[in-house]
Amino acid sequence: METVYLNGDYIPKPSAKISIFDRGLLFSDAVYEVVSVINGRLIDMPRHVSRLERSLGELSINAFADWPSIAQNLVAENDLQEGLIYLQVSRGVMDEREYRWPAPETAPTIFAFAQNRVLIANPMADRGMTIITRPDLRWQRCDIKTTQLLYASLMKMEAVSAGVDDVWMTQEEMITEGTSQNAYIISQDGVLISHQLDRRILPGVTRIEMLAQAKVMGLTVEERAFSIDEAKQAAEAFVSSSTLLIMPVVEIDGHKIGDGKPGARTAKIRQNYLAAVQRA
Amino acid sequence: METVYLNGDYIPKPSAKISIFDRGLLFSDAVYEVVSVINGRLIDMPRHVSRLERSLGELSINAFADWPSIAQNLVAENDLQEGLIYLQVSRGVMDEREYRWPAPETAPTIFAFAQNRVLIANPMADRGMTIITRPDLRWQRCDIKTTQLLYASLMKMEAVSAGVDDVWMTQEEMITEGTSQNAYIISQDGVLISHQLDRRILPGVTRIEMLAQAKVMGLTVEERAFSIDEAKQAAEAFVSSSTLLIMPVVEIDGHKIGDGKPGARTAKIRQNYLAAVQRA
Repeated sequence: METVYLNGDYIPKPSAKISIFDRGLLFSDAVYEVVSVINGRLIDMPRHVSRLERSLGELSINAFADWPSIAQNLVAENDLQEGLIYLQVSRGVMDEREYRWPAPETAPTIFAFAQNRVLIANPMADRGMTIITRPDLRWQRCDIKTTQLLYASLMKMEAVSAGVDDVWMTQEEMITEGTSQNAYIISQDGVLISHQLDRRILPGVTRIEMLAQAKVMGLTVEERAFSIDEAKQAAEAFVSSSTLLIMPVVEIDGHKIGDGKPGARTAKIRQNYLAAVQRA
Repeated sequence: METVYLNGDYIPKPSAKISIFDRGLLFSDAVYEVVSVINGRLIDMPRHVSRLERSLGELSINAFADWPSIAQNLVAENDLQEGLIYLQVSRGVMDEREYRWPAPETAPTIFAFAQNRVLIANPMADRGMTIITRPDLRWQRCDIKTTQLLYASLMKMEAVSAGVDDVWMTQEEMITEGTSQNAYIISQDGVLISHQLDRRILPGVTRIEMLAQAKVMGLTVEERAFSIDEAKQAAEAFVSSSTLLIMPVVEIDGHKIGDGKPGARTAKIRQNYLAAVQRA
């Protein structure tokens, strides 16, 4: 029986239920984090905590907890070797539905759970991902990791319908990010291009260590938006996320990237990233 | 004890709880309706059902229920004379968190509740609402009534901070709508201007009957976007929603509309609207 965390208690998954008056459910008034687990260890937890606290701060949600302990306890309780910990915080339960926030002392709703998933031996790392592009119609504060994921979910289904692995979203022909990953290219002259941190993209936790490793490898990094055309002409392309780690992209809108196989530098970044986070 | 509806059962409010794996909670993968109740009668229920079915269709959520009966039973169970029925449908509960939709036969989560509220004798109808304008940063499918209401909620708090009643949201200086109301002006030459129905605004149920009544009154109606400046120069301004009904606006960004009092034509529209829906 899986054990989940809900408002201070570790309980069996089927009993983890919350009020229909939770603001996360009625107003999407909630933020979350997904932390990867490799060899039973939490990856990059302090950076996830920092981002969670930033998200909470942007929305003025008053929630304090020992986030690393909750995550660690779920790893232990579920004997999780490889996978993820999901953690969500909402502004709490209202007496009545009301756009206005309840009193600041209202208890937030905090829950978390563990999920098994193959991260390192993901076969996609060998074959590479295929991508299509679609307009980015999400709200304009994508730097806050909220549960307003309906558009990302619709785009994931668009990818499924198109027989590809994922969608890169675009604003005026410039790529913002994937449905749940940051997007990158390595140009023909060897420059790693990553969308700058602004309100259009999520500040990826994996992105931080990935960029550090790329610099160690001697790659020049440019933080700026890149176009669909630029992506199609790139030497390599890839994404980063907590659960995909670093994942090569081999096709964009039916156009092969490079020779259509995962790039050598991408593979090296993945390898170095994994070594770095497992050392940490 | 208040009675609410959850997945086929009428139960006490405190026991209405749903799984933390509900997609409404994790992905905002849910739509809703708010139906007003006056003198114990549901107002405009068939139009709410039509809009709900359209929202479900846009998201390919398979949910069928006797929506009018659910609403009517909640009115009866809670002896509701004046207020609202809230009804929400999500794509249902997942085994594991996953952007991809679960199998189409997955049972949706359906819940509904009643809330007492003064609608007709709302003192705001006499004093009028004060409004500020702010950029509209919501997603670009506002024609679907989803629970992605975080930005609207943030804007409502922005209004509270500014000491006004609400926010009208703008795209490139053109007004889209209020946080949970459609927005209108009556120009100096007596034309009622209402944002056209497109992906920028919710197709208001109240808007339909309101526009019909305005035409009966002999007002010319133009369905197009109007600017902040145009609004400030208007003779009258107002909003419509299921719970505010027709509500005058007397101030926009600190600028008085007309003589700063609720407009005569707005009052007449409100009166005729109320007569029409109570007759129906």
